[in-house]
Amino acid sequence: MTITNLRTDGRAADELRPVTITRHWSAHAEGSALIEFGGTRVLCTASFESNVPRWLKGQGAGWVTAEYSMLPRATNTRSAREAVKGKIGGRTHEISRLIGRSLRAVVDTKALGENMITLDCDVLQADGGTRTAAITGAFVALADAVEWARSEGHVAKRAEVLKDSVSAISVGVLPGGQAVLDLPYTEDSTAETDMNVVVTGSGDFVEVQGTAEGTPFNRAELDTLLDLALGGTKSLATMQREALAQ
Amino acid sequence: MTITNLRTDGRAADELRPVTITRHWSAHAEGSALIEFGGTRVLCTASFESNVPRWLKGQGAGWVTAEYSMLPRATNTRSAREAVKGKIGGRTHEISRLIGRSLRAVVDTKALGENMITLDCDVLQADGGTRTAAITGAFVALADAVEWARSEGHVAKRAEVLKDSVSAISVGVLPGGQAVLDLPYTEDSTAETDMNVVVTGSGDFVEVQGTAEGTPFNRAELDTLLDLALGGTKSLATMQREALAQ
Amino acid sequence: MTITNLRTDGRAADELRPVTITRHWSAHAEGSALIEFGGTRVLCTASFESNVPRWLKGQGAGWVTAEYSMLPRATNTRSAREAVKGKIGGRTHEISRLIGRSLRAVVDTKALGENMITLDCDVLQADGGTRTAAITGAFVALADAVEWARSEGHVAKRAEVLKDSVSAISVGVLPGGQAVLDLPYTEDSTAETDMNVVVTGSGDFVEVQGTAEGTPFNRAELDTLLDLALGGTKSLATMQREALAQ
Amino acid sequence: MTITNLRTDGRAADELRPVTITRHWSAHAEGSALIEFGGTRVLCTASFESNVPRWLKGQGAGWVTAEYSMLPRATNTRSAREAVKGKIGGRTHEISRLIGRSLRAVVDTKALGENMITLDCDVLQADGGTRTAAITGAFVALADAVEWARSEGHVAKRAEVLKDSVSAISVGVLPGGQAVLDLPYTEDSTAETDMNVVVTGSGDFVEVQGTAEGTPFNRAELDTLLDLALGGTKSLATMQREALAQ
Amino acid sequence: MTITNLRTDGRAADELRPVTITRHWSAHAEGSALIEFGGTRVLCTASFESNVPRWLKGQGAGWVTAEYSMLPRATNTRSAREAVKGKIGGRTHEISRLIGRSLRAVVDTKALGENMITLDCDVLQADGGTRTAAITGAFVALADAVEWARSEGHVAKRAEVLKDSVSAISVGVLPGGQAVLDLPYTEDSTAETDMNVVVTGSGDFVEVQGTAEGTPFNRAELDTLLDLALGGTKSLATMQREALAQ
Amino acid sequence: MTITNLRTDGRAADELRPVTITRHWSAHAEGSALIEFGGTRVLCTASFESNVPRWLKGQGAGWVTAEYSMLPRATNTRSAREAVKGKIGGRTHEISRLIGRSLRAVVDTKALGENMITLDCDVLQADGGTRTAAITGAFVALADAVEWARSEGHVAKRAEVLKDSVSAISVGVLPGGQAVLDLPYTEDSTAETDMNVVVTGSGDFVEVQGTAEGTPFNRAELDTLLDLALGGTKSLATMQREALAQ
Repeated sequence: MTITNLRTDGRAADELRPVTITRHWSAHAEGSALIEFGGTRVLCTASFESNVPRWLKGQGAGWVTAEYSMLPRATNTRSAREAVKGKIGGRTHEISRLIGRSLRAVVDTKALGENMITLDCDVLQADGGTRTAAITGAFVALADAVEWARSEGHVAKRAEVLKDSVSAISVGVLPGGQAVLDLPYTEDSTAETDMNVVVTGSGDFVEVQGTAEGTPFNRAELDTLLDLALGGTKSLATMQREALAQ
Repeated sequence: MTITNLRTDGRAADELRPVTITRHWSAHAEGSALIEFGGTRVLCTASFESNVPRWLKGQGAGWVTAEYSMLPRATNTRSAREAVKGKIGGRTHEISRLIGRSLRAVVDTKALGENMITLDCDVLQADGGTRTAAITGAFVALADAVEWARSEGHVAKRAEVLKDSVSAISVGVLPGGQAVLDLPYTEDSTAETDMNVVVTGSGDFVEVQGTAEGTPFNRAELDTLLDLALGGTKSLATMQREALAQ
Repeated sequence: MTITNLRTDGRAADELRPVTITRHWSAHAEGSALIEFGGTRVLCTASFESNVPRWLKGQGAGWVTAEYSMLPRATNTRSAREAVKGKIGGRTHEISRLIGRSLRAVVDTKALGENMITLDCDVLQADGGTRTAAITGAFVALADAVEWARSEGHVAKRAEVLKDSVSAISVGVLPGGQAVLDLPYTEDSTAETDMNVVVTGSGDFVEVQGTAEGTPFNRAELDTLLDLALGGTKSLATMQREALAQ
Repeated sequence: MTITNLRTDGRAADELRPVTITRHWSAHAEGSALIEFGGTRVLCTASFESNVPRWLKGQGAGWVTAEYSMLPRATNTRSAREAVKGKIGGRTHEISRLIGRSLRAVVDTKALGENMITLDCDVLQADGGTRTAAITGAFVALADAVEWARSEGHVAKRAEVLKDSVSAISVGVLPGGQAVLDLPYTEDSTAETDMNVVVTGSGDFVEVQGTAEGTPFNRAELDTLLDLALGGTKSLATMQREALAQ
Repeated sequence: MTITNLRTDGRAADELRPVTITRHWSAHAEGSALIEFGGTRVLCTASFESNVPRWLKGQGAGWVTAEYSMLPRATNTRSAREAVKGKIGGRTHEISRLIGRSLRAVVDTKALGENMITLDCDVLQADGGTRTAAITGAFVALADAVEWARSEGHVAKRAEVLKDSVSAISVGVLPGGQAVLDLPYTEDSTAETDMNVVVTGSGDFVEVQGTAEGTPFNRAELDTLLDLALGGTKSLATMQREALAQ
Repeated sequence: MTITNLRTDGRAADELRPVTITRHWSAHAEGSALIEFGGTRVLCTASFESNVPRWLKGQGAGWVTAEYSMLPRATNTRSAREAVKGKIGGRTHEISRLIGRSLRAVVDTKALGENMITLDCDVLQADGGTRTAAITGAFVALADAVEWARSEGHVAKRAEVLKDSVSAISVGVLPGGQAVLDLPYTEDSTAETDMNVVVTGSGDFVEVQGTAEGTPFNRAELDTLLDLALGGTKSLATMQREALAQ
């Protein structure tokens, strides 16, 4: 499969959109980052609490959880608020659970002690890849919250709590069969296959979620998509490291 | 009553916090503004729809409504999401209704035609005065949405739809008896009296909502508070005009 | 502004509708009053509990809260029950909160001890001014519940728990510009400005909530409305005192 | 089984509590009655609507439905509002359905035409037998609403719409084995068997709902209870007729 | 009243449909039975818990409760799931409460100790009589759960906890006036009168719930229906005993 | 990686549990199948409706959707009903969406016409792999419903509506590193990696959902898991074909 330059925004098939990570966006949260993948903007805040959910009490371990949400007009047409509808939709639930699982994959909950960190990932503007931006930004907010907890004496070392970093990217197959990295909304909405891949800083998989929206995909296509994703998450891991080093 | 300089942030009693209004913050909404009153940041988006609620159909008039919400970690400690709780709290309802009423006070719904504009005011960071910042920012987003509607031929002239501008500010009485303008959270949480005043560009009242949180207030205190508020909204009206002129 | 006699029910602009307060309407509640402002009838019951909400435990203080509701056919056309809709509307929330705040303004929660009193204000028939009747009647029910608590040894003296009395009235500006006191539904539904004022027995303000439903109002109109309101609440305070003296 | 006079309120076993029916209690509803069975007070309003639920449209028939509710402090200890809990409890549902079915048993829905009448039965004060008082009072409110509809030309004759009258009473077996009519709360809460019986004006059964709360009951006990119930509903039918004749 | 053979499925008026009871259908529950009354199939599971609801703690007594539900396509046309609608309907509530009361009538809650047994009755396929099948099957599941609790040492003897057996059957009057036992859906949906009767193994009544869906019924009809019901429940009690003896 | 025989139930690593598919389990649904993967039992019903959701009207295409649910005691300990909790949990939403997407991947919605088929997948007993059993069984129910629709003249040919078959299986990595097919609950709850794979009859991927519950997985492990899954779904496709041929 040749990787040609046929994308509407002029990117190569294996090229990320411009990524910016603004740490300490929030004056209140123990950790926070505003992350942008092109036109997608997600505000990630990490809230630390010296407490755990009831089902975990007395076990000497902590918990990391996440809640994802979109502002009503983050998208091209306005959606009703889930608070107004009185219930959370399936997609929101699914993404919140994905973010939580992805972060817990790199957390040593024993080293965290009986503390809980909640990541709120609120999409302020959406242009595809909101869940992958959320995971990538949430890790930075989480790292800052763990560092804050260390400085306050709640946990020992950040390096013990966070065993590795984690980031995520979307890949997909466009109608003509072209596999591409980091799809904006226009590509995502017409892709034949859509895949989100969550990868640790050391390059192992935490989640692989591929869906055939159109024609089912074969093993060769799957391999190409995984290659693209590993390239993308490698770059994101570097950006996370650089942001946290500042 | 002498107006002395006794506020924690060094402001005079009749001085606003730094205000910034960033128009066109959102790439999708017909109008949008990120407004900041000191540490309070509210993202206001205006969504235009060529349609009206069912109870208004066929009457040749439009509608302007608003929804207010706070991100879970906009505040110093995290609050549960209303979408997760499955219902909207009393405070949220109350502020959403206030914003909607305030904007409709300067809208000629007949001139708007059978169109609807929804203002979403999402508090990204809170430090007192979120409802007044929301009203002030929402007016700017509304004005841009009306201008967009004019350019698309949905309404005749912006000046016909918007009869005036509208802004809002908080005033209050501090424990020692000092009346002050534009209270940040630390002042607001200990104030004896708390008042939100919504005023048109020409200086008339749209809403006056004063509450004794501690000692009830007398007529003289009420008069001082109203004076402060009218000074504050006069400045805000100028800032709105300047922002919209750019 | 001349106060002429132009009201549909023949009242003077500064005249209250007939007010009746029936104490001990309920056989079960620790305090109760059926209050009528003309055609508006609100049943107010006060329920005493030797317990406080969790967030207040161990602080040596009590709490007073209120819930307002309207029977489905209290109004001219039937409204759906909020219990059937599964959620409480914004207006109901807002009024419940207003009643609770108004009563707490005259309660010394320390003197109440770790006890809680819940005021239920159920509108049996509505003809304008339901929230002001509710506040006025709820105070009477509250006073009886505090007296009951004293007689049972739960609190020391009624006079220590209740620092003052509190009542409320509506005022408004009719389409022709006439300011009037205590608006029935027909006046309220067409008023240019609508204001609810909550005042202590000693004449200080607890709440001032004025809203321009039509044309915004100026400072002079505001002053006239406040004068009318203070006259009305002075009369209501006398009636409360007389009712409680029986 | 001997019927001895052993009841706390001195009544004979087959004696009703004092019953009062106050028609036209509500100024707004098309029909209304405040009914009292001793200390039980239920406000019944009938709301007429020239419309039917969607599933009934175009069939030339109408509908009669009912909603039952209790004020929070109708009882000896305060219950949380169902609107606040966000859902209606099983008991409320069950009684609402019972009232609706009981009334429809005497309504010719064809003669009603495509109109709907909603009966709201709100218990203002409870002392046992609230559902039976509700059915008995709701019939009176319904009759007035049908008469109103006739006078407005919505239906032909009241006698065609209402084929008969309907009333209801509770009966039960007290711990010692005594069968009694019309149980107040103190008797009801300790009864071995509790039965509610709905009977037409001509003496036929519409509903028989008997429950063994303690020891199961035999055929002879059932027969005694049915005899008592038929005596009670015969008296209630007379009172309804007299009330409607005024 | 002659009992002639006029039923669509060829049964005599006093004849049950084929009944099968399959114990131990579930590998997980402490007791379980799949019960079939003709085309009606209900899966009943009994879950034992060494715990009681909060309101019962410390009283030395246990609790038995039930939840009834229907799969969406148990019926001829699909119904929306109550979980999706976000609330439980009146009919479901009513039947759940009926099953719980019926079982508790034969349980000595003191002998059960501070333990709770929850009966889940899920209708997999419906053809009339689902509530009566549920009660009859739930008793078998309950008996097995009590036996399990005995074998685990949670309760003393099954015979002490279960004072008797309990079963239920429907009876009704068909349009022509024929009284019949155990109505399938086609008969039930057109019946003039519908009655569900819950009876102990020793032949006493636990519940009698008769409703006139069409013409109200007289005393003679009621007597015939009760005779049929007692015949049916006598047979069901025998089947329960035989099933539990295997 | 050697595939040794170390599983608690004695199966080879690449061996499915016994699978049974019982068609026509339901008398009412247009298609139905009770599917068992070992101790996992899922009842799948397909409900056909000559109608489409509002957002699809007038586009000449149909829709296939699914709802997944678990009976409260399908599992080892009882879970609260989602209908009682008043909302659907994240896991339920996620699986319902997965089943719907998986089936739509093999449906030609244009050939289906403006018709809708709803698949209800109710887990009667759970022992791991409930979502994969649900997808596999739902396809059989769907095929029968499409065949029914063809026989009734609602659609042309089954082969046009269903472009292929679809089935699903779980694979995972056990703590020692062994990759296995079709995990029962005991394996699933301790697996390091858990993956669900949905595959068409012709062997292409519809969904790949892999999650590291413990240690993240590398590319080689991913490849082994995909090989196992393709083997399993090939066998399931054969069983589906055979079941539908009977």
